[in-house]
Amino acid sequence: MDFKFTSLQNPVVKKIIQLKSKSKIRKKEGYFIIEGLRELNLAIQSDYVIDTILFYPELISYENLRKIVKNSTTKIGEISKPVFEKLAYRNTTEGIIAIAKPKSTAIKEVCFKSENPLILVAEAPEKPGNIGALLRTADAANIDAVFIANPKTDLYNPNIIRSSVGCVFTNTIAMGSTQEIIDFLFKNNIQLFAAALHLYSEIYTKQNFTKASAIIVGTEATGLSDLWMENCKKIIIPMEGKIDSLNVSVSAAILIFEAKRQRSI
Amino acid sequence: MDFKFTSLQNPVVKKIIQLKSKSKIRKKEGYFIIEGLRELNLAIQSDYVIDTILFYPELISYENLRKIVKNSTTKIGEISKPVFEKLAYRNTTEGIIAIAKPKSTAIKEVCFKSENPLILVAEAPEKPGNIGALLRTADAANIDAVFIANPKTDLYNPNIIRSSVGCVFTNTIAMGSTQEIIDFLFKNNIQLFAAALHLYSEIYTKQNFTKASAIIVGTEATGLSDLWMENCKKIIIPMEGKIDSLNVSVSAAILIFEAKRQRSI
Repeated sequence: MDFKFTSLQNPVVKKIIQLKSKSKIRKKEGYFIIEGLRELNLAIQSDYVIDTILFYPELISYENLRKIVKNSTTKIGEISKPVFEKLAYRNTTEGIIAIAKPKSTAIKEVCFKSENPLILVAEAPEKPGNIGALLRTADAANIDAVFIANPKTDLYNPNIIRSSVGCVFTNTIAMGSTQEIIDFLFKNNIQLFAAALHLYSEIYTKQNFTKASAIIVGTEATGLSDLWMENCKKIIIPMEGKIDSLNVSVSAAILIFEAKRQRSI
Repeated sequence: MDFKFTSLQNPVVKKIIQLKSKSKIRKKEGYFIIEGLRELNLAIQSDYVIDTILFYPELISYENLRKIVKNSTTKIGEISKPVFEKLAYRNTTEGIIAIAKPKSTAIKEVCFKSENPLILVAEAPEKPGNIGALLRTADAANIDAVFIANPKTDLYNPNIIRSSVGCVFTNTIAMGSTQEIIDFLFKNNIQLFAAALHLYSEIYTKQNFTKASAIIVGTEATGLSDLWMENCKKIIIPMEGKIDSLNVSVSAAILIFEAKRQRSI
């Protein structure tokens, strides 16, 4: 064990509280917080750099943590019950709070896993719960990348990490302006399908998603910006009931899994 | 206008606060609360009996409400700003708080819209947000019925009404024990497809959902009970990433819309 923190006045403890709550501090310091065993495991498997792990010994042992952590430079230290209770969100941390380094989300660094990529683009999503749900679906479908256009929320917001059940780590994620993302997709010869109600929208099941494709979804409140509408084929999921829209993560899942189905035939 | 309430001590105002927060009171009194214009409209269109509507005149007028309400026996009264602020949840009520009567959720009263029904069954869903999302998807797909087996939550919980964006009113919903629902589905010659990881689970895209079908989903935490596992064909959505499950409302949407796709060919 590298250290033991017992005081709420400890500067590292204070810094963690700030890193959890303030995206400005995360950006300035270049660190973010991971809570929970599954989340930590997924981050390590996805080659995130873990700087420090604090653990509460009644819930997990130093030896177990050392086994999980690949990198021997990661500092691992014990925390007292008052410190743990101050830092932990509900009971979902399993005694683990880690300080990690973000990865680059630069578009130009994106490498696709497959030769025939399938990509999800979400424009300006705001609710962490929706972003988390999109990332969870993207992981399950093992798509090549998730692009967030005109991001409104820091990717390493604790609510995104939690609602994505760690899929914020397992996906290839890039962020940029709508124009940058459109340029990148065009350059890579990727078809653009925008989920949008429009005079010329076509039913999603009639599209051919077997070639390199990007599925673009907007927010429920404002939909997609004009730039997407001008540059994409518009597709819809028919709404046959009384309401006129689905939750964005549900729409994205229906479209992504239709593409997966077509590609598996 | 039938009345005007200005006091927080008014017994009707006090009753509404209880009806919003306590399912026990909803059951005892036989009433529940609807907030918001869209929700009220969907309830009226779906033939719910609206007993009383309270409105805040700065946000909506008596005349507009009278036009919406079909039934002339509905009492409509004004509330003062303090009463409105006490009763309204955030700013999503659009000045409307209504007292309504639940509909029967008895299984034996269920009538299918189509001759070849498509049904969603959710076993013991707990989170109002998940139930709301399921109901929203069910409305969009215009399926015949939603069955809730071994319900844990009162259907008229304000969080279900809100997260379903009023689809708690537009769907045919029935509740009962798992055994009752299985008996009903068998009696009606409906194929049972359980979304469940099992040694003999088959991929969902290889199934034929064009005959009368029920899709059964469990909770993420505990899955489906043995009775479903014994009586259903087990199907899975392949998980190709690092995580082992999707959100229940996302899984249900993927399965329901695959059934819809097959039925539209």
